[in-house]
Amino acid sequence: MDSKRIALDVMGGDAAPAATLDGAVRACDPTGDLRMAPERLLLVGDERVIAEGLEQRGGNPGFAIQHAAQVIEMGESPAQALRAKPDSSIARCVGAVKQSAAGALVSMGNTGAVVGASTLGLGSLEGVRRPGIAVTLDLTGHPVTLLDMGANIAPKPQHLVQYGVMGAAYVEACLGTADPRVGLLNIGEEASKGTDLLKAANDQLTASPVRFLGNLEGGDIFENKVDVVVADGFTGNVVLKLLEGFAGFLLMLVLRELKAHKVQWSEEALARVKKNIDYSEYGGALLLGVDGIVVIGHGRSDARAVANALGQAARAMDAEVNEAIVKRLAETTTRA
Amino acid sequence: MDSKRIALDVMGGDAAPAATLDGAVRACDPTGDLRMAPERLLLVGDERVIAEGLEQRGGNPGFAIQHAAQVIEMGESPAQALRAKPDSSIARCVGAVKQSAAGALVSMGNTGAVVGASTLGLGSLEGVRRPGIAVTLDLTGHPVTLLDMGANIAPKPQHLVQYGVMGAAYVEACLGTADPRVGLLNIGEEASKGTDLLKAANDQLTASPVRFLGNLEGGDIFENKVDVVVADGFTGNVVLKLLEGFAGFLLMLVLRELKAHKVQWSEEALARVKKNIDYSEYGGALLLGVDGIVVIGHGRSDARAVANALGQAARAMDAEVNEAIVKRLAETTTRA
Repeated sequence: MDSKRIALDVMGGDAAPAATLDGAVRACDPTGDLRMAPERLLLVGDERVIAEGLEQRGGNPGFAIQHAAQVIEMGESPAQALRAKPDSSIARCVGAVKQSAAGALVSMGNTGAVVGASTLGLGSLEGVRRPGIAVTLDLTGHPVTLLDMGANIAPKPQHLVQYGVMGAAYVEACLGTADPRVGLLNIGEEASKGTDLLKAANDQLTASPVRFLGNLEGGDIFENKVDVVVADGFTGNVVLKLLEGFAGFLLMLVLRELKAHKVQWSEEALARVKKNIDYSEYGGALLLGVDGIVVIGHGRSDARAVANALGQAARAMDAEVNEAIVKRLAETTTRA
Repeated sequence: MDSKRIALDVMGGDAAPAATLDGAVRACDPTGDLRMAPERLLLVGDERVIAEGLEQRGGNPGFAIQHAAQVIEMGESPAQALRAKPDSSIARCVGAVKQSAAGALVSMGNTGAVVGASTLGLGSLEGVRRPGIAVTLDLTGHPVTLLDMGANIAPKPQHLVQYGVMGAAYVEACLGTADPRVGLLNIGEEASKGTDLLKAANDQLTASPVRFLGNLEGGDIFENKVDVVVADGFTGNVVLKLLEGFAGFLLMLVLRELKAHKVQWSEEALARVKKNIDYSEYGGALLLGVDGIVVIGHGRSDARAVANALGQAARAMDAEVNEAIVKRLAETTTRA
C-alpha cells in the first residue's frame, strides 16, 4: 500500500506499450529531469507484455506491476467497454487508486473510458458537483489552463463556477501562479453576452471568491489576460481539437512558403513553435474534482509525453491539489 | 429605383470613412479586378463627409448618395442604438434595400446592429426560420464556409438543418462548388455524440436533401472534408474569434524564431499564409436568410476588404443566391 504511488496504464495509447514503457523508464532516468524513484510507479497491464518489454529495456529497475488481462481500445464506446471488460488496464488503474495502492493514475488510453471509470470508481471530492477536464497550454512561457475540455458537455452555471474555483486552485498549487486570474469563454466581453448558461455563470463567478476578470472572446486566450479559462465542455472540446488541427495547418503553410522561398529552417525552431500549443509539455489533461489524481495523456503520446504526464501526476500529488480544491470549494459555498 | 444597386455604409468600421470611400473607388477602378459601374453603388452616410471625401479622391465618379445624419458606433448596444438612432447609416442602408432602392447592403460597422436592423427591417426569406451568419475561409484554395457565426446563439435543431441547406445553396451559387459536402461541428464523429441539440440536428440533417457527411471535430475544418460547416452560433462565434487570435499568435512565434535564427523572410510570404484564414479575401460575412443581400465586413477592414465585400455582394446578387435558398428550402420542407 502506497498512496504516493502512480498507476500507469501500460496498455493505453496509440504507441502502447512501447511508448508507455519507455516513458516509465525515462521518468526514472537518474540523469533525466524527473529522476523519479522506480518504486513510485505501478505498471498496470498484461504482465507478460510488461515483463518482456522491461527485459528488452535492460530489466525491471524496481517498478511494481499489476496484471490486467483486458485492454479497452481507443475507438470503443466507453460505457460498453467498461461493462464488458472489468479486468481492463484502465479499470485496474482506477481500482489501484480506489484501494489506496496508488494516489494517482496516468493513462494515454480511451479518454471517455478513463473519465467514466474514474468518475464512477473514485467518486467526487467533497463539495464537487461535476468533475472537469483541465488542459494547460504553454503560451510562450505564460501557461493558460482551460477547463472543462469535455467531461461535462451540458453543464449548469454552478458547474462552471466550480471549474473556475478548481482551475484556480490547480494553477496556484501546481504551477505556482499567485492569485490566478479567471475568465469565462464567451462571445463578447459584456456580462450580458452569451447564452442563459453563460450569463448565469458570469453572475455567479462575479460573486465567487475567485479573481474573476469577466468574459473572454476566443482570441483573448493568447493575450495573457488570464491564467484560467472556464468553458462549457462542448465548446472546450471543440476549441481544443480546433487548436491542434489549426496549428498543424498553419505550420504546414509556413513550411510550404519557406520551401518555396528556399529558406532553410531548422526542425528545432519548428519544434519550439509547436511546443507552445502542445499540452503534453505539461503532461496531459487533468480530471479535476475526482477523489484521486487522474492524468489523461494524448493518445499520440510518445515516451517524453508519458514521462511528462507521470511528472505532472507526481507534482499534483505532492502539491496536494485535491486538498486545495476541497478547501477552496468550502470557501465558495460559504460565501455563495 | 435600382434593385441591382449596392448600398454601402460609408460610416461603418474602424477606419471609416477613409477605408469605405477608398474601397468604393477601388471597386470601380477601370483597371482593377472588379470594375464595377459607379452607378451601381449607393453611398450612405453623412452627405458632407461623403462629398468632401470624394472631392479629396478626385470627385464623384458617379456614385449615388443618400444622407444619414447618425452613426452607430462599434461599441454601442445594438438594440439601444437602433432605437435611439433611426437616421443611422445602418438603418438607412436597410431602408434602401427594403424600399428596393438597392438589392444589397454592405457594412463594416457594428455587427449586432447590422444583423438586428436587417433581420427586423427586411424580414426572412420564404421558409427561413432564423437567419444565420456565413463566413468563408480560403484554406489553400479549398474554400470552407462556416455558419452560423453568431446570429443565433441558442438555435433549435431545425435551424441548424436550415443552415446546412442555406450554406449549400450559397457555395453552389456563389462559389461554384458542385454538390457541396456539409458537416456538423461537434465533439466526435459518431452520430450519438454531443448535446441533445447536436444529436437531433445530426438526425434531421441525415434525413435532409443536403449531402450530409456527418459530424466533424474542430480539426477536420482544415482537412478538406467538407465545403460547409454547420455550427450553433455560440460555438461558431467562439471558433471564428479563436482562429483570428491563434493565427496572429502562431505567426508571431514563427517570426520570432525566424528572427532568432537570422532567417530573412518576406512580408509577401507571410501575407500569403495569413490570406488563408482572412475571410475578407472573400469579402465579409453574409447574413443568409433575410430578404436581401447583407454583407457584414470586419470592423478592421481596409480599402481592399471593402472592395472585396462589394464584389461579394454583387456576386451574391447576380448569382441569385436568395432565390436558390428559397428553392432548396422548399425541397427540404417537402421531403422532411
